[in-house]
Amino acid sequence: MISSAQNPRVQHIRALQSRAKERRQANAFVAEGVRLAEEVLAAGWKVKQGFYTAELEPRGMELVSAFKDAGAEMDEVTDNVMEAVSDTKTPAGLLLEIERQAVPLAAGPDLVVILDRVNDPGNVGTLLRSAAAAGAHAAVLAPGCVDPFAPKVLRGGMGAQLRLPVLELDWQAIRAFLEQHGLHALLAEANIGRPFDEVDLTRKLAFIVGGEANGPSPDARGLGAEAIQIRMPGQIESLNAATAGSLLLFEAVRQRRPK
Amino acid sequence: MISSAQNPRVQHIRALQSRAKERRQANAFVAEGVRLAEEVLAAGWKVKQGFYTAELEPRGMELVSAFKDAGAEMDEVTDNVMEAVSDTKTPAGLLLEIERQAVPLAAGPDLVVILDRVNDPGNVGTLLRSAAAAGAHAAVLAPGCVDPFAPKVLRGGMGAQLRLPVLELDWQAIRAFLEQHGLHALLAEANIGRPFDEVDLTRKLAFIVGGEANGPSPDARGLGAEAIQIRMPGQIESLNAATAGSLLLFEAVRQRRPK
Repeated sequence: MISSAQNPRVQHIRALQSRAKERRQANAFVAEGVRLAEEVLAAGWKVKQGFYTAELEPRGMELVSAFKDAGAEMDEVTDNVMEAVSDTKTPAGLLLEIERQAVPLAAGPDLVVILDRVNDPGNVGTLLRSAAAAGAHAAVLAPGCVDPFAPKVLRGGMGAQLRLPVLELDWQAIRAFLEQHGLHALLAEANIGRPFDEVDLTRKLAFIVGGEANGPSPDARGLGAEAIQIRMPGQIESLNAATAGSLLLFEAVRQRRPK
Repeated sequence: MISSAQNPRVQHIRALQSRAKERRQANAFVAEGVRLAEEVLAAGWKVKQGFYTAELEPRGMELVSAFKDAGAEMDEVTDNVMEAVSDTKTPAGLLLEIERQAVPLAAGPDLVVILDRVNDPGNVGTLLRSAAAAGAHAAVLAPGCVDPFAPKVLRGGMGAQLRLPVLELDWQAIRAFLEQHGLHALLAEANIGRPFDEVDLTRKLAFIVGGEANGPSPDARGLGAEAIQIRMPGQIESLNAATAGSLLLFEAVRQRRPK
């Protein structure tokens, strides 16, 4: 049982929780909660170590055993230690350090979403979740987005990061990616371009969705993508970035549905 | 200049920020930031009082003058006081106490969204924002939703609360509301019901959208609404509640668009 917040493993988890740089150096991230842990098990990602508290529900304890059997160092910790390492106000009682791995890209991707300076963790998480639900083949994070394995992004993504290829690319690499896969780029704009539901979304395409603050980045505009917009009959300036991206993805799903 | 966090007005704002009960008793809420303040001015809601800091940008200072001219008590406060009253980590330098008022319901509402136990503030805010953008006539908050004028809900709503009728009703009143306006109720379910894009959404309707944790409430199910679902080709259990509601609202917009 670990009872000291000074324990080196505890310190390591805290560093992973709070800093993207630490996550990158360790090629690892932290997932909390029984639900996300089940996703980790189902997706077969490698658990390096984990902490749990005595009050963990039976379903959680079964997961602890499963990860132990797979070779992870799983230790009981005090409530105080769990509070020290948790990113949430009410810790779930189960926390895992997971080795980051790349989800392989399927051959012939025909639906991709590119996130352009989306720096709100909740929005990135929600967009990844929607992309996975829509059956997109990849999410590309352009410069200026938050780390897709940050704690809040993981919570918002509900495990999407474990199933969906998430690529962090600069704009030169994004241009090459689009060309390589023959993807037509569509840029979500606020008040210019054709309404998205009048555009043919059955071809191979990539939606570029910007953060809310400043519209598309100069780099995104520099791609020469076709501008599209979402009809908004109401009196409000804009939609939430994750909402806008989800509307685009699911309009593609609608147009591609079997008839 | 107010420099003490013990000042009674400061204490009053802190209470409004942190407790729904205080907001209800005072029939008031707190809005922060220049952008939301501009919405307040444009919508013509009454500002009771406000605080600002010396570093407030010129656009914000113009708003301070406008609210002063309209009779609000506007005072400069120290950075420490602003930090004490602000709900955000990096206060915007402008904070208003606003009298809550009811936005009148338009005659013959034909697009309404009902939130059923949506208790995540960000989701409620995003749903209100989407409802306003979609030109919905009202949002109804059923029991178990968070206060629509809580600080995080206001931030997520981006001013939607100032333009969209937001009704807090119990299920008996919701049933009466649906009957009175001849609204057909459609209940968003996870895996049952017709796909939403195969349902006629041009008639007068109300979407019922639940929180994510437990699906629709027994009360919502008791309405006898038609179940609908969102097609999800991908391998993920569910969508974010605000995303799901937004997809429904904008599919109605799509079906109703001028051709």
